[in-house]
Amino acid sequence: MSGRSYVHGYTAREAERLSDQAETLAGLLHGDTRYPAGSRVLEAGCGTGAQTVILARNCPEARITSVDISEASLGEAKMRVQDAGIENVTFETGDIFDLRYEPGSFDHIFLCFVLEHLEEPRRALERLRPLLRERGTITVIEGDHGSAYFHPDSAHARRTIGCLVTLQREMGGNALIGRELYPLATGAGYRDVHVSPRMVYADGSRPDLIRGFTRLTFTAMVEGVGDNAVSRGMMSREDWARGIADLYRAAGPDGVFCYTFFKATGRK
Amino acid sequence: MSGRSYVHGYTAREAERLSDQAETLAGLLHGDTRYPAGSRVLEAGCGTGAQTVILARNCPEARITSVDISEASLGEAKMRVQDAGIENVTFETGDIFDLRYEPGSFDHIFLCFVLEHLEEPRRALERLRPLLRERGTITVIEGDHGSAYFHPDSAHARRTIGCLVTLQREMGGNALIGRELYPLATGAGYRDVHVSPRMVYADGSRPDLIRGFTRLTFTAMVEGVGDNAVSRGMMSREDWARGIADLYRAAGPDGVFCYTFFKATGRK
Repeated sequence: MSGRSYVHGYTAREAERLSDQAETLAGLLHGDTRYPAGSRVLEAGCGTGAQTVILARNCPEARITSVDISEASLGEAKMRVQDAGIENVTFETGDIFDLRYEPGSFDHIFLCFVLEHLEEPRRALERLRPLLRERGTITVIEGDHGSAYFHPDSAHARRTIGCLVTLQREMGGNALIGRELYPLATGAGYRDVHVSPRMVYADGSRPDLIRGFTRLTFTAMVEGVGDNAVSRGMMSREDWARGIADLYRAAGPDGVFCYTFFKATGRK
Repeated sequence: MSGRSYVHGYTAREAERLSDQAETLAGLLHGDTRYPAGSRVLEAGCGTGAQTVILARNCPEARITSVDISEASLGEAKMRVQDAGIENVTFETGDIFDLRYEPGSFDHIFLCFVLEHLEEPRRALERLRPLLRERGTITVIEGDHGSAYFHPDSAHARRTIGCLVTLQREMGGNALIGRELYPLATGAGYRDVHVSPRMVYADGSRPDLIRGFTRLTFTAMVEGVGDNAVSRGMMSREDWARGIADLYRAAGPDGVFCYTFFKATGRK
């Protein structure tokens, strides 16, 4: 954000991918986030609203304010929330680093897949902290592409993932941020920080997860940067194709795919 | 095994490491394995008995037969079990691929950190299967060194781990076997195979785990192959030292370390 471009595109396929991802992971990532009736919740960086819908459904009586810096994303998020018949979300345009709310305006702050795109994730957490009331909570969810491994193993597939990590780094982001949530949140001044890894493990006994996560979420995300990676000479088109084919092979009946998300909670 | 040498040495420090590892991981890996009174359990490949002690304590009324191909390891295992006052374990010398028990002799078979050392892990599981009674269960626990990642990230540290993986592969083993347990067990003919990943996540809030796992288990294990890796020119001594220092840095108060074990169960 902050004027930089975003590694995930806004194509129709990309929107579908983000939606598939949200559904598949809803229970794993969000199941234990239930904000009580009347609580004031800030969703910082709502993007196209994929997580907003889940959050609002899980906390139907909380008062959610979802902000994003991108008007285009907000437009989509509004439609998505409207389509879902959700009425407890207010959308506002805003920069996470410069939100104009009074100190202590929120009981809870929620960020999901946001810090990975920021050059200064710790500063973002520091800037959000005053917006919490005393003892208010923050919840941060991030992935970590370095947590991806699979069977059959494949150097080509690992390289395609490496391209995504590199491209995201060049845009100022960090695709390996999940593992850093504990030092980030404690360093930003939060107390009682607790990080809980949420591992997705997909083998032949879990075809829904293979489809929903290995294929439609992770591999589709890697595929999304293929033209960029190849045109920039990071991999030859042939090697890229082989890497993607190997990722799909790990989504076959004898394949296994592992990926871990990290969920941190802390208090002001 | 099978006449090949073993990647983990038998020095005093190594024995201490294996004991520390067993204590730290006992709950995570073994907590849900409780064989009932009178059940006949085969522990295939007991090594020096680090897991035997935990298994026998958790299943005090099961009748456990622990076999290993190494007389030296069995001697140590016997002493360990005797020191712990455990009386429900019988030790026998035997080759996993050629055990002389009657078909159906056991209700349950248990293997922990064994398949990683075998050239033919699937054949081992196939050879063990007839020893189970109908509907008898098998439990297999393995690590996966490709599941290790940490903060701060370090290419040198990753290379030291890569050396361990390579050395184990050259000895006929597979340090990345954890992720393969589902296809291995189903391929060997077991039914109702269920694999459950057991992730170790150690951050600054968990100093006991940092000490017991990141330092005394994982980093100590990598350090154990240092002379071998350096003398074979896999890494310079300087690079090796830097990699190990970086692993210890991931065990510092701001560091994070992640590793995943895999536990598979199945039925005959």
